[in-house]
Amino acid sequence: MPVGTLASVKGVSQDVLEELGIQILLGNTYHLYLRPGVEQIRKLGGLHRFMAWPRAILTDSGGFQVFSLNELRKVTEEGVTFRSHLDGSSHFFSPESAMAAQIGLGADVIMAFDECTEYPADAERVRRSMELTLSWAQRSKKYFEQHKNEVPWNRVSFQSPVSSPDPSQALFGIIQGGMGAALRKESAERTLEIGFPGYAIGGLSVGEPRGLTREVVESTLEHLPTDKPRYLMGVGTPEEIVVYAGLGIDMMDCVLPTRAARHGLLFTSQGKVSIKQSRYAGDEGPLDSKCSCRVCSRYSRAYLRHLYASNEVLAQVLNTVHNLSFYLDTMRAVRHSIALGRGARFL
Amino acid sequence: MPVGTLASVKGVSQDVLEELGIQILLGNTYHLYLRPGVEQIRKLGGLHRFMAWPRAILTDSGGFQVFSLNELRKVTEEGVTFRSHLDGSSHFFSPESAMAAQIGLGADVIMAFDECTEYPADAERVRRSMELTLSWAQRSKKYFEQHKNEVPWNRVSFQSPVSSPDPSQALFGIIQGGMGAALRKESAERTLEIGFPGYAIGGLSVGEPRGLTREVVESTLEHLPTDKPRYLMGVGTPEEIVVYAGLGIDMMDCVLPTRAARHGLLFTSQGKVSIKQSRYAGDEGPLDSKCSCRVCSRYSRAYLRHLYASNEVLAQVLNTVHNLSFYLDTMRAVRHSIALGRGARFL
Repeated sequence: MPVGTLASVKGVSQDVLEELGIQILLGNTYHLYLRPGVEQIRKLGGLHRFMAWPRAILTDSGGFQVFSLNELRKVTEEGVTFRSHLDGSSHFFSPESAMAAQIGLGADVIMAFDECTEYPADAERVRRSMELTLSWAQRSKKYFEQHKNEVPWNRVSFQSPVSSPDPSQALFGIIQGGMGAALRKESAERTLEIGFPGYAIGGLSVGEPRGLTREVVESTLEHLPTDKPRYLMGVGTPEEIVVYAGLGIDMMDCVLPTRAARHGLLFTSQGKVSIKQSRYAGDEGPLDSKCSCRVCSRYSRAYLRHLYASNEVLAQVLNTVHNLSFYLDTMRAVRHSIALGRGARFL
Repeated sequence: MPVGTLASVKGVSQDVLEELGIQILLGNTYHLYLRPGVEQIRKLGGLHRFMAWPRAILTDSGGFQVFSLNELRKVTEEGVTFRSHLDGSSHFFSPESAMAAQIGLGADVIMAFDECTEYPADAERVRRSMELTLSWAQRSKKYFEQHKNEVPWNRVSFQSPVSSPDPSQALFGIIQGGMGAALRKESAERTLEIGFPGYAIGGLSVGEPRGLTREVVESTLEHLPTDKPRYLMGVGTPEEIVVYAGLGIDMMDCVLPTRAARHGLLFTSQGKVSIKQSRYAGDEGPLDSKCSCRVCSRYSRAYLRHLYASNEVLAQVLNTVHNLSFYLDTMRAVRHSIALGRGARFL
């Protein structure tokens, strides 16, 4: 899932995203709550209509951004008080208000409000944080069940851009529990007891070694049902998404393809290319000769290098299109391999 | 002609420019000479190949940028010494080196090296400057005639992206002479004596009142042949391009549509829209209900306002696409009116 923080995958128009074959985008509740505001988007018929995106959208709960962008946050059992990174104004997110925000945005998949446990953290802290997330998951579900018919595109006055026999959102639960197998198991089992149509593995990619991430994913997956979507949050590199798909992960999101693109770091079938390097200044070849995206089929490395070196906005646009295309091609190959019954042998 | 200073119309991919129906782009010799360098582009087969643009390109002579971006320039009969706005390094443009640069870039239409007379300027200064431009026009033509077969896409080793029975460039002359009818007449007559396949009116849009611009254009046009392209440099607003086309101008270039777009100023059939204004925050309508561009047919004013207010790069991309579309539609209407024999009655 490409990340479209502020109702936009930075630099790329929605018609190009559709053409790339993107099926689902991620929007950040925290950012959209601050700008343009949930009420504004709700009045305009929800995020799909607002950003003219007819395919699926998932919104995160806002929790991760509150934790990663706010050093002055204050966490209580009730919720989190935080300051806007834009103007310093004070705000409060609780499981209830995070649900209200996501219902108002009207994404197809919304996430329970959780606390993302920092790394490293001692055992007592990890347990306390996990208990908080479980309590918030309970409250998230309760609020959602009572208010899920308030989704803006569910109202008669708005035509839903998504045709569905059951025009409601899906609320996913999030597994926390730090880096240990025991607490992850407990978190998974107790989140399953609450019951959600999909489950996410949160609290990873927070600074721990990559090997540990994989261990935690593997041990957590053992406790998640295979007939419900399993979503690994905030992962990863092209190599990692192949590995995790092979392990059984169904959904992933990451800013890496889009953020790296803005820094001139491009993923290709021959490995990473830092397009800013002067070695590409006279290189007439395509960025990736195995890629058929609209960038690789039209432009040379020399031109992409020139755009980046000259700080041209088109550099960001084209680099993002290519990296997204590379990620989508990677996942298409994974799906193809799974369909052929080869599964993890693709690795 | 949209302006693509550094081999890119800022933020817009060439496939979108083609789709908009753009037939010719302008590239700035001064900027391309500094980055990535003429020799680099020449080695890569010329500007068409470098930027993957199969349609026509016009390059300016570099003179105007040297004059407008360099306060420390030194002008002699021989040429102009100037400092790079990027790193302060010293460079020299003469009619000969400006021709060499433009031949190396390989645009379809290239411009004689001229001095853009500042405004206001006294009579003696204007005459001296006009004489310099005439002398440089002579030298430009001489150098061009001797070297025009060195265009990179004219060589066997490169396939020309432009199919032409006469694969050579066209060198246009530039009329100067300040704001008075007498010197403009003299400049036109003596430039015609040198002889070019097209003529530009330069030295306007340099700070003079708009009424004066029109007077000078009208008086200069009287002395230019109607069977050769007449190009008014650096003009103008949507209203102005209609007026000047009605007067007989065949070509115009201006940064206005693209630069205004980057500042959130959008041209519509209902007049100018400053999309940053909060009045558009909840506006579900299209930017211009009479426009069928990919922006107006997909996005709302509310979304465009959000992108601009949030400093999203997509704001620049979409705003630029719309403004270019509006300019092209305007010129299409002008051509239609001329084809119907209504000419200036369109005004």
